[in-house]
Amino acid sequence: MSRVAGVTHMVGTDGGLIRFGPDRSLRLDSGAHLAGLEIAYRTYGQLNADRSNAVLICHALTGDQHVASPHPVTGKPGWWPRVVGPGKAIDPDRHFIVCSNVVGGCMGSTGPSSTDPLTGQPYGLAFPVITIADMVRAQAMLIDALGIDTLFAVVGGSMGGMQVLQWAADYPERLFSAVCIAAAARHSAQNIAFHEVGRQAIMADPDWRGGDYAQLGVRPEKGLAVARMSAHITYLSEAALQRKFGRELQRDGLSWGFDADFQVESYLRHQGAAFVDRFDANSYLYITRAMDNFDLAAAHGGSLARAFTRARDVRFCVLSFTSDWLYPTSESRSIVRALNAAAARASFVEIESDKGHDAFLLDEPVMIGALTGFLDAAGQARGLT
Amino acid sequence: MSRVAGVTHMVGTDGGLIRFGPDRSLRLDSGAHLAGLEIAYRTYGQLNADRSNAVLICHALTGDQHVASPHPVTGKPGWWPRVVGPGKAIDPDRHFIVCSNVVGGCMGSTGPSSTDPLTGQPYGLAFPVITIADMVRAQAMLIDALGIDTLFAVVGGSMGGMQVLQWAADYPERLFSAVCIAAAARHSAQNIAFHEVGRQAIMADPDWRGGDYAQLGVRPEKGLAVARMSAHITYLSEAALQRKFGRELQRDGLSWGFDADFQVESYLRHQGAAFVDRFDANSYLYITRAMDNFDLAAAHGGSLARAFTRARDVRFCVLSFTSDWLYPTSESRSIVRALNAAAARASFVEIESDKGHDAFLLDEPVMIGALTGFLDAAGQARGLT
Repeated sequence: MSRVAGVTHMVGTDGGLIRFGPDRSLRLDSGAHLAGLEIAYRTYGQLNADRSNAVLICHALTGDQHVASPHPVTGKPGWWPRVVGPGKAIDPDRHFIVCSNVVGGCMGSTGPSSTDPLTGQPYGLAFPVITIADMVRAQAMLIDALGIDTLFAVVGGSMGGMQVLQWAADYPERLFSAVCIAAAARHSAQNIAFHEVGRQAIMADPDWRGGDYAQLGVRPEKGLAVARMSAHITYLSEAALQRKFGRELQRDGLSWGFDADFQVESYLRHQGAAFVDRFDANSYLYITRAMDNFDLAAAHGGSLARAFTRARDVRFCVLSFTSDWLYPTSESRSIVRALNAAAARASFVEIESDKGHDAFLLDEPVMIGALTGFLDAAGQARGLT
Repeated sequence: MSRVAGVTHMVGTDGGLIRFGPDRSLRLDSGAHLAGLEIAYRTYGQLNADRSNAVLICHALTGDQHVASPHPVTGKPGWWPRVVGPGKAIDPDRHFIVCSNVVGGCMGSTGPSSTDPLTGQPYGLAFPVITIADMVRAQAMLIDALGIDTLFAVVGGSMGGMQVLQWAADYPERLFSAVCIAAAARHSAQNIAFHEVGRQAIMADPDWRGGDYAQLGVRPEKGLAVARMSAHITYLSEAALQRKFGRELQRDGLSWGFDADFQVESYLRHQGAAFVDRFDANSYLYITRAMDNFDLAAAHGGSLARAFTRARDVRFCVLSFTSDWLYPTSESRSIVRALNAAAARASFVEIESDKGHDAFLLDEPVMIGALTGFLDAAGQARGLT
């Protein structure tokens, strides 16, 4: 069912898929246009009569639209159960919750594993390089198609937080509030370096085949697993790794070989192996590239404050974690300083946690409390009950 | 020329090679014995008449014996020019400087690329797993063969510092002083995790061939390069990476592809490519394994102080760097606390630096000053002039 001309809309049990017609291609920052864009999404709850209760949740690098319902591949629960659900900060009984797979992803939205209409084969590296702004532009098209003018809130952690900032820069008039968690307004040299290791691991796998693995019936699983292992270390703090695993062995005594002797080795190998079952290697390349290219200030003459000039009526909540060394608190402070300089309303909480970057996905009562308090207050201001 | 029975000694332009006879195999912690052990080493300066001026320098993971003279493969200067040389803290005009390639290495000492006498082929994974203590035991055999009873000093950074600690635990009576820089008395879960990523990258390379690449005439260069890239990030601080590269591009504008757009990407790729020219993939596996297995307290009933019980007459100098997140200052403090508890003499300096772990190899005046002051004072106590 289509609510907007030029849009085909399918809703199934695992969520919706929206296809934009040839007259509605996605304009990309690279200058390319992506025709036949499809966006896969999930919704939870109902849009209220005055269409004022929509919450868009933006997912992280390896996340997807299944934020509050089981993952169709792994069968695991949604990825943010402590934040999204009945009685939670983001509540399907009060909010109309939308979460879509980013463009470039591999869970149903158009990405490098989609069919290239020019060749009839998977895009592979023929897929255009995308940016965080492109992801957000596609989300705005989805929101349009869903008949939503203004979002009550846009919320995200990590790369999701980058999208939140991009929303505030590009579509501030469509936001009532914005929540940016454990993120940064630009990727640092170290962030880029870690991503480059992951990309090189994938591209070093002979089964990557220059990106054409899908049409050749192979998958660069080993390279993708190494990329995941490397990245996974950056998601945890040293303290969390030490507390969780320390130097504990898998068995009594060393194997005196190269099996996984230490529990942390076994854990990492498992993380790598599980990841390749649910993620596409080329999507990993494209999405990490989008993150590395992200630099919101650079796109506004070098001034982050200028990026938020039109966002002064948006209520912002910025959260960081003390032990997050991927996007440390200093990055969140820069965002808050820029919001202040732009005379926007910003509340900021640095949350004491030793769980590292992934704390935003975990049971962090202070984060839950801050989110709940912020969204409840914003909801009252918005007239939601 | 042999100074000790059962030892064959060859001295060439690039240094010496010592081969131990069949009656002098190296006993390994694993229980195995390594027969026909060869140790490649360099010396600088002259042993004085009372054999009291010998300094053993222990190299780091990817270092070698060429501490103060050009590398035979790369042609680059020795790896510690700011510390070792005429007029430097460790001075061939005053000291008899010895530096040997660790057992398991690939610069002439017996390692996995050496010929297995049982098969006539390179060992590959038939090489026994070695430990830091095994490396030190081999060094002690070398020192014996060189006619040195007591070392004036044993000095090392990173894995070299681990060997220094092991020397103090196993051969305290043979040490006058010991300098441990940017090291730890055990590998943390995060340390192990990063090494495991590197090992998995190597073993994922189809040219690794289960470790038998040498006899098959191939090399797992891509996997080894990824391992090096991943490790290299841990050698630098975030601040150093940001200052050195920031988000600077290679060219004007983005390539909108997967070339190295950012200078930090190009730098990392270069680090990986240069490394494979001079290092052996299996050696990387064995040496990282030795580091991961290192836990000096565990080998002494869980008490690091007990490891140093016999070392109370050794003069210790422990140095750390504020921005070293691979072996943070807290690890050095644990070492100093244990030395204090063992009533050993320890001087400790935490050096303010934003260069990260690799600071020990770089121009750090405070480190140079501390090293010079410590070794000069120890030299006076030892009667060196």
